[in-house]
Amino acid sequence: MSSTISIGALSVSVFGESHGTAIGAVIDNLPAGEKLDLERIYGFMSRRAPKKDGTSTMRSETDFPEIISGFYNGKTTGEAICAIIKNKDQHSSDYKSIYGIARPGHADYTGFLRYNCANDPRGGGHFSGRLTAPLVFMGAICEQLLEARGVTAAAHIYSIGKEKDLPFDPVNVSKEQLKEVKTKYLPVIDPEADGKMRNVIDEARKALDSVGGVIECCAVGFPAGMGSPIFDGLENRISQIVFGIPAIKGIEFGAGFEAAEMKGSENNDEFYTENGDIRTRTNNAGGILGGISNGMPLIFRTAVKPTPSIARPQNTVNFITKENTITEIKGRHDPCIVPRAVPCVEAALNIALMSYFL
Amino acid sequence: MSSTISIGALSVSVFGESHGTAIGAVIDNLPAGEKLDLERIYGFMSRRAPKKDGTSTMRSETDFPEIISGFYNGKTTGEAICAIIKNKDQHSSDYKSIYGIARPGHADYTGFLRYNCANDPRGGGHFSGRLTAPLVFMGAICEQLLEARGVTAAAHIYSIGKEKDLPFDPVNVSKEQLKEVKTKYLPVIDPEADGKMRNVIDEARKALDSVGGVIECCAVGFPAGMGSPIFDGLENRISQIVFGIPAIKGIEFGAGFEAAEMKGSENNDEFYTENGDIRTRTNNAGGILGGISNGMPLIFRTAVKPTPSIARPQNTVNFITKENTITEIKGRHDPCIVPRAVPCVEAALNIALMSYFL
Amino acid sequence: MSSTISIGALSVSVFGESHGTAIGAVIDNLPAGEKLDLERIYGFMSRRAPKKDGTSTMRSETDFPEIISGFYNGKTTGEAICAIIKNKDQHSSDYKSIYGIARPGHADYTGFLRYNCANDPRGGGHFSGRLTAPLVFMGAICEQLLEARGVTAAAHIYSIGKEKDLPFDPVNVSKEQLKEVKTKYLPVIDPEADGKMRNVIDEARKALDSVGGVIECCAVGFPAGMGSPIFDGLENRISQIVFGIPAIKGIEFGAGFEAAEMKGSENNDEFYTENGDIRTRTNNAGGILGGISNGMPLIFRTAVKPTPSIARPQNTVNFITKENTITEIKGRHDPCIVPRAVPCVEAALNIALMSYFL
Amino acid sequence: MSSTISIGALSVSVFGESHGTAIGAVIDNLPAGEKLDLERIYGFMSRRAPKKDGTSTMRSETDFPEIISGFYNGKTTGEAICAIIKNKDQHSSDYKSIYGIARPGHADYTGFLRYNCANDPRGGGHFSGRLTAPLVFMGAICEQLLEARGVTAAAHIYSIGKEKDLPFDPVNVSKEQLKEVKTKYLPVIDPEADGKMRNVIDEARKALDSVGGVIECCAVGFPAGMGSPIFDGLENRISQIVFGIPAIKGIEFGAGFEAAEMKGSENNDEFYTENGDIRTRTNNAGGILGGISNGMPLIFRTAVKPTPSIARPQNTVNFITKENTITEIKGRHDPCIVPRAVPCVEAALNIALMSYFL
Repeated sequence: MSSTISIGALSVSVFGESHGTAIGAVIDNLPAGEKLDLERIYGFMSRRAPKKDGTSTMRSETDFPEIISGFYNGKTTGEAICAIIKNKDQHSSDYKSIYGIARPGHADYTGFLRYNCANDPRGGGHFSGRLTAPLVFMGAICEQLLEARGVTAAAHIYSIGKEKDLPFDPVNVSKEQLKEVKTKYLPVIDPEADGKMRNVIDEARKALDSVGGVIECCAVGFPAGMGSPIFDGLENRISQIVFGIPAIKGIEFGAGFEAAEMKGSENNDEFYTENGDIRTRTNNAGGILGGISNGMPLIFRTAVKPTPSIARPQNTVNFITKENTITEIKGRHDPCIVPRAVPCVEAALNIALMSYFL
Repeated sequence: MSSTISIGALSVSVFGESHGTAIGAVIDNLPAGEKLDLERIYGFMSRRAPKKDGTSTMRSETDFPEIISGFYNGKTTGEAICAIIKNKDQHSSDYKSIYGIARPGHADYTGFLRYNCANDPRGGGHFSGRLTAPLVFMGAICEQLLEARGVTAAAHIYSIGKEKDLPFDPVNVSKEQLKEVKTKYLPVIDPEADGKMRNVIDEARKALDSVGGVIECCAVGFPAGMGSPIFDGLENRISQIVFGIPAIKGIEFGAGFEAAEMKGSENNDEFYTENGDIRTRTNNAGGILGGISNGMPLIFRTAVKPTPSIARPQNTVNFITKENTITEIKGRHDPCIVPRAVPCVEAALNIALMSYFL
Repeated sequence: MSSTISIGALSVSVFGESHGTAIGAVIDNLPAGEKLDLERIYGFMSRRAPKKDGTSTMRSETDFPEIISGFYNGKTTGEAICAIIKNKDQHSSDYKSIYGIARPGHADYTGFLRYNCANDPRGGGHFSGRLTAPLVFMGAICEQLLEARGVTAAAHIYSIGKEKDLPFDPVNVSKEQLKEVKTKYLPVIDPEADGKMRNVIDEARKALDSVGGVIECCAVGFPAGMGSPIFDGLENRISQIVFGIPAIKGIEFGAGFEAAEMKGSENNDEFYTENGDIRTRTNNAGGILGGISNGMPLIFRTAVKPTPSIARPQNTVNFITKENTITEIKGRHDPCIVPRAVPCVEAALNIALMSYFL
Repeated sequence: MSSTISIGALSVSVFGESHGTAIGAVIDNLPAGEKLDLERIYGFMSRRAPKKDGTSTMRSETDFPEIISGFYNGKTTGEAICAIIKNKDQHSSDYKSIYGIARPGHADYTGFLRYNCANDPRGGGHFSGRLTAPLVFMGAICEQLLEARGVTAAAHIYSIGKEKDLPFDPVNVSKEQLKEVKTKYLPVIDPEADGKMRNVIDEARKALDSVGGVIECCAVGFPAGMGSPIFDGLENRISQIVFGIPAIKGIEFGAGFEAAEMKGSENNDEFYTENGDIRTRTNNAGGILGGISNGMPLIFRTAVKPTPSIARPQNTVNFITKENTITEIKGRHDPCIVPRAVPCVEAALNIALMSYFL
């Protein structure tokens, strides 16, 4: 409910407001005695940090999670793990001047209605993209637990604007390829896509605009036979968490929307057996049949809308006075949040997949 | 969990196997004292019945739900409503000959793994599309409760194969338009789309093949300010239930994947106020900002894969013997399940929306 | 929520009204491939049937459960098991004359308020003791699954009025003793208690009155190390389900309320080890420390209030007219429901314990 | 699940270990815009602080909760409220010498089994009574929200050892009486009970022993018609949370176990109407019929076992070496935890009751 949900036997909670004391997460019901490498957690989280062209390490960032509980002697205790990430940026002196102005594409107005004008509006409050940091923290933990179970997941930028990366090979993608793409500053498979995408982003920035994109996410090594039909299948759980990332507006598994244009004879993945393994020759199902994994790579793509914060003046309303007005959003904003959303989507998948091992 | 979930304060459960005694649903925690018109429930369910060119009424169908509990004197009692739909088609004499053969695109193999070879495999068991009937039953109940609260939802066929219908006008779609499209045998907006889509389906049938499509769903009258950020927003709840429909492989809200190709200045919906109402000039957000409704029409589209059951021989495996083999699926199968999936998607939306009124 | 809850990974739902079409249960998320002996389920349920001095078999009773789903070839399929128990007694011709009269000790008035006067009041509706039949059905299933895991549970009448049975030996009670007490018509350990308790019940009946009692329940073979601290321990789960039985007004584990009068040196159970087993010399903890089983017998007692339906005239109100009045409850009522509540309490424990094996 | 549960629409989570960095709580889904007086929260929490004969203020204690989120401008934001309580006492130099020794009555052994020897054992870890501080924090918040809705709850010491206080008058107890008993250092109704109970505690301390007791808890002003039958009634919810307090071994509502010795004619609470109000002349039901409030005071009692930490040598085992041994528990321990458990029980009730207002 709200920002605390049960996902299978796992319970995850995200709390905090952008300009409050701190944000954080509680993840409960993970197994006890699992080793956690904190440096690796910080490394995962640093992939979400603001991108600069120089090297950026987690250590020097403010988004350093302090683990409060559930971790002892380098291992999970089996109790709830709570982590806190302090907020640095709590000055909000100039906030009041814009209170009541609905920034287009933001939740200022809907949050005001939902919380009876009592929500913390500073910096987007609980709706801020900053709240993905706790999600990434939990995903970074699950990454290590999944690895211990033979599962590797990774996400890459599938497209920014109309510029596309190469897709994962849905049949033959390997753990090595997944691990490699995670190390990249701009996580793309096709080296040429790197430059083209940077150009698209630069152009958007210069035009005081922003641009969206698509993220593709894949897991290899997830055992066949996990998931459930109807309401608790892999698609249901994954999408429930992925839509927990602000700016996500769509998700598709395997061939997804393209399957809707296909014939059954094209879309059906023929099974074959080789050395005792059962596999499919294509993977339009994205590794999921009837909500249950079939042993092929799990693949989905998710649409990220362009950053709603743009520097151009925009027509809007003051929802307090109910008057039409114009807003100019101050401050520096990412012209494209897709790169920073990549580890968020991967984290969401990690959490969903880990929930099946409990 | 599995086929029983909590969606907000609502609890919904779908049970049964295709060739067992019966299938059915339990929906718990609806308000007490709500009038239910049973004929209208049957009418809603008949939209899911196999399409024939003659008139088809629910009454003459086998999928007639018997309400067991929670309904008294024409009203909900506030206790769990259970309905049973008897299965007619329980002869499965020829089942054993195909046991172990993984029909491509079906959950035969994954179900076998998931349930340790103990699941009921006849006719797809719990994975059968037949299990959408209980979902539609629950959605038909929620339709009436929503109407009493001023909310109207409807779905139409957005596309079959590459043939497209006109979309709902995301800004100005009216309740009347929604109600009208529900009455159509083939629910499309553009009269010309009807013939074109029928052709696509006919061609697929003649080619012993099948074809997929996209369904668009819309709700008008849902109040602004409902939903939640992070894990329990409108997108999360709706997608969790929509993916409960077999064959769904993707979902997108508002502009969805198209938003990923847009600039922020194009995608942002500018607010304006008119006669005290706050509205947006475009509706790329699909009526949802930060997981919360903004008062504009709620709009999403969902991808339906082509029917996996096709009459052509297909390469596959016997997952018991682990040998490669060929399957020829007997019996008559819908060359396109999109028309019958329309009320299923609408039902899923109804359930999700009703959960916010509790 | 209401009559559908998640208990660990298990989901259980009880539906129906006393004079409606049927009552029933859905239990979801049990493991697949578990053998179920239906005769034994009926036998368990017959322990809850009205007690007569002649032999009473389930088969001849109306409370015969029809399994609708989740059961195939003698085994669980892993999908939700739904069972329906038809109601015979649907004539309610004389109901209207007493509508609005709050029978003391019954939920007529509170149900009326809770459900906005829309609940089905006939025969107590959803509040009827009849609704324990679905609970017992689910407990009877779990009994067999627990047995396959080495766990045996049983309940006996600890007291009726002031007449006490011998208690289970909290340290040395054996599976054989538990199994034996289940076979008894009046489930007591001390043969002399049988006659004394029958006298107490007879006296109550002759006095147009009723009498309450205490049920003691025990499980042997439940592994050490199961349960959780804080909110999801054995006491929490067991009590949540046991209070699902109408007429239960208290529960205590191990020494329970007596522990409150003890010194720490008396109440603490000293551990000792013998042949590699760790045991305690006393069992005031009822086999539970920190919400987790310690390997000793699990023991609790629960208080059953006297049947509120008594033949004497009682002062009460008409909650429609808000006038004082007198009620005389017609029909035959058990002067003591404790014997019939015994399998209900045992069923509740079975469900709670089984939830830890998922 | 584990230490995170949903209780109706409310989600509560308790995290932390006794000697870790901090302990804390997350409570999610409270309404937005509710005023919270922090001083009053600290005051409530100080009732749980170690009792000294001098004045003890929260401010000077270590158990000072820092609210991290969900609170802005003196009001709830509607988002999850997280609070952290730092642990001071993290020195655990002498821990290793006693590792593996099962202190009788403690969860050392069961926690070791449950968490695969990975739990944090220092000071009891997550099983420590210290973990009731986050519970009390959440209960202190709910107290204020309940008061705004006309509900007042309080608990007092019903007995310590064999010394009894006067009970609440189950029919006529007033809000004033409830508020008064909360202000007392030793919360008893009968002034003479104060001295007698102190004597019992002193004697236990001198004997290097401890003593248990019973706590009675009552709420006035809770509206009639709230709750649900079967699994989600007032008894179910309240007991689920109350058993979240370590050392609780029993709970009874209204007449409770005494009802089991009563006749129906004695136990049934006759209704009467006066000035349009419907009330009962007795209150053996504890204000609950069919899981639903009837408007009378809600009353329950709960058994607290004697502190398991006593200074005497006790026989026990080393569960690592599986050898019999003797333990002598070092440090100072409360000879009676009942007084400190009073606000914990009250907090549990507050949380349960508040969950019905969402």
